[in-house]
Amino acid sequence: MKRIFLLLLFVASNIVYGSETSKPMLVEKRAFTLAHFTTESGVSIPDVKVGWESYGKLNADKSNAILITHFFSGTSHAAGKYRESDVLAGYWDAIIGPGKAIDTNKYFVISADTLVNANWHSKDVITTGPASINPKTGKPYGLDFPVVTIGDFVEVQKQLLDSLGIDKLHAVMGASMGSFQALEWSVRYPEKVSRLIHVIGAAKMDAWTVAALEKWALPIRLDPNWQGGDYYDGERPLAGLTATMLNITQDAMHPAIYNASFPDFIVLDPKAKQDIRQLPKLSQTLATRARARAETQDANSILYLVRASQLYTAGMQGNFDSAIDKITAKVLLMPASNDLLLRPEPIRKLAETLKAKNKDVQITEIEGVWGHLDGIFSIQSQADTIAQFLAK
Amino acid sequence: MKRIFLLLLFVASNIVYGSETSKPMLVEKRAFTLAHFTTESGVSIPDVKVGWESYGKLNADKSNAILITHFFSGTSHAAGKYRESDVLAGYWDAIIGPGKAIDTNKYFVISADTLVNANWHSKDVITTGPASINPKTGKPYGLDFPVVTIGDFVEVQKQLLDSLGIDKLHAVMGASMGSFQALEWSVRYPEKVSRLIHVIGAAKMDAWTVAALEKWALPIRLDPNWQGGDYYDGERPLAGLTATMLNITQDAMHPAIYNASFPDFIVLDPKAKQDIRQLPKLSQTLATRARARAETQDANSILYLVRASQLYTAGMQGNFDSAIDKITAKVLLMPASNDLLLRPEPIRKLAETLKAKNKDVQITEIEGVWGHLDGIFSIQSQADTIAQFLAK
Repeated sequence: MKRIFLLLLFVASNIVYGSETSKPMLVEKRAFTLAHFTTESGVSIPDVKVGWESYGKLNADKSNAILITHFFSGTSHAAGKYRESDVLAGYWDAIIGPGKAIDTNKYFVISADTLVNANWHSKDVITTGPASINPKTGKPYGLDFPVVTIGDFVEVQKQLLDSLGIDKLHAVMGASMGSFQALEWSVRYPEKVSRLIHVIGAAKMDAWTVAALEKWALPIRLDPNWQGGDYYDGERPLAGLTATMLNITQDAMHPAIYNASFPDFIVLDPKAKQDIRQLPKLSQTLATRARARAETQDANSILYLVRASQLYTAGMQGNFDSAIDKITAKVLLMPASNDLLLRPEPIRKLAETLKAKNKDVQITEIEGVWGHLDGIFSIQSQADTIAQFLAK
Repeated sequence: MKRIFLLLLFVASNIVYGSETSKPMLVEKRAFTLAHFTTESGVSIPDVKVGWESYGKLNADKSNAILITHFFSGTSHAAGKYRESDVLAGYWDAIIGPGKAIDTNKYFVISADTLVNANWHSKDVITTGPASINPKTGKPYGLDFPVVTIGDFVEVQKQLLDSLGIDKLHAVMGASMGSFQALEWSVRYPEKVSRLIHVIGAAKMDAWTVAALEKWALPIRLDPNWQGGDYYDGERPLAGLTATMLNITQDAMHPAIYNASFPDFIVLDPKAKQDIRQLPKLSQTLATRARARAETQDANSILYLVRASQLYTAGMQGNFDSAIDKITAKVLLMPASNDLLLRPEPIRKLAETLKAKNKDVQITEIEGVWGHLDGIFSIQSQADTIAQFLAK
């Protein structure tokens, strides 16, 4: 049975990262700095830095750029490796690279870390958020950092593109929270976006999703080490963060893959029957993994990402219907059939709404056993669709 | 839009509790005491008390008894009202009562509070668990209370029935965690169970459900007031408990009803865009309701109910396959089609497995928009099926 688990991991890693026989595409992380950035909530932040990376070459008329916007737990690292020794390549390496669906021999693919990126303790992430130093105090902002929105993420990306002289995008593509940014790009700057690829996403928040996201924030606030967000001089709220990681992981996975990954014998533990203080073996295993993941994360940043996501509706403050009216991009919607977090139903409705508005829209569902994570782990199944969409 | 919400509440309350024009069936809560009870984990607990109630009359040969086993958050209160002034009747009042699907003119219906019932602070609940006084110390047990199992719940119920001279059940019926108990009855005492009605249930735990249940325990352990379970002299861990209630409520509901109950305008809150410390309006509303619910609950008891559920597989320690072989009862399986917590797929498989073993099994799915809660709120849609099954 353990073999099934290892097999699944192997299959998954090959789906995600492709065969390891070919030499990895090496990529370089860079920093982009803005002297000042004013948030949608009206606050000016000095010295805003975000990380970015690119694959392929920008052509002479700068018309071949594709922007990739990342998901909640993600970073700019969509493809390639920073070092040959890296165990994993970027999350969409299966479709981004020379000769792949998003062919870096043709396209200049660019991706940036968002503001308030949660992977604060990862050496390859550059972001500005609650863990950054507030120049007014010389200490981390904590909860004095302003609320930021999906629209703010888009504005920072736009300034990065402006700095490179890129005035128009061949496409913008993002998964999950990345889809919010990609859609917002198409609504906010319709003249700059030729194609939108919206993967395992949403067009607006609903009550269920707002509440689901709140559940990711709750354990952090409960951790006594959190200290109202003012923990940077003391112990990090790792217990709360670990619980948050457990929540995020489970919400992103369908029971089918979960149960295939953890057959019954892993779940059972005779000690758990004798002592309430002893967790079931599965819970111990999951907690150990979640704890390791928590080490790379900043707790407050999660709260900001939760809020940015909760506040999202295409067009932000405005009217949703008039917002999506503005879209002129060709649209490719890719929900995952088994997604339990951002379910396919609202995206099927969005496709109908866009069609009714005479938009150029196509929808294709990603099939798979992962649930929400099919947007990452099963993306290669849509390679031809993506390549054709980019060529049309 | 607010009207939609109120309408839904009204519809729901009528589905659940029936029309309020008829006089409620008044019921009395009683206590059942055992001088000693030895748990499956091998610990003897003195002075075990549980509450129970019944509807209808036991016939002369004591052959008309139906046992109702309750769900995780439930109590013995399956039908009727304790006082005419009670706002709500018991959770399955729509199907239990004179002339109803489970006709109390024919049947003697009995239900008991489980051990470690979480509704410790409700005046109508009688249970023995971590909040009970440990006679050895004169203080609440806390986590020194032994781990108890679904099998233990069944054994206490059996002793209650023995005390009433009931040797055989016309039927045993339970929803969710109640289905675990009902199934365990049929496996452990096949000669005593003529019919099994298994509603929104499971036959065994899987990894996904074990992890989902652990998420209910996590916020309690994070609350600094929890104090390793030793909080009975101090502040109760109500913040953690509130988060647990939020988790339970959301897991039991399908997004469809959730979003219909909370239209978008309730979700949005301009302040949440300006201040990270200000929760979205929806989160505030949900937290207020969850907090009120938490007031009636004992935190440690939730941990014990989580563990009892996590440990459940029909036949408990034994082999699942040989356990269900023992069933001689007629079986009615009633998963809910939209259940996202205890999904219908494993129950469809169970039906096939039982059929292959030549058991007398029928399956009917409860349709509805509530998800897991359709097992409670939409049960009346199966009234005829239940009545016919009881008569066969």
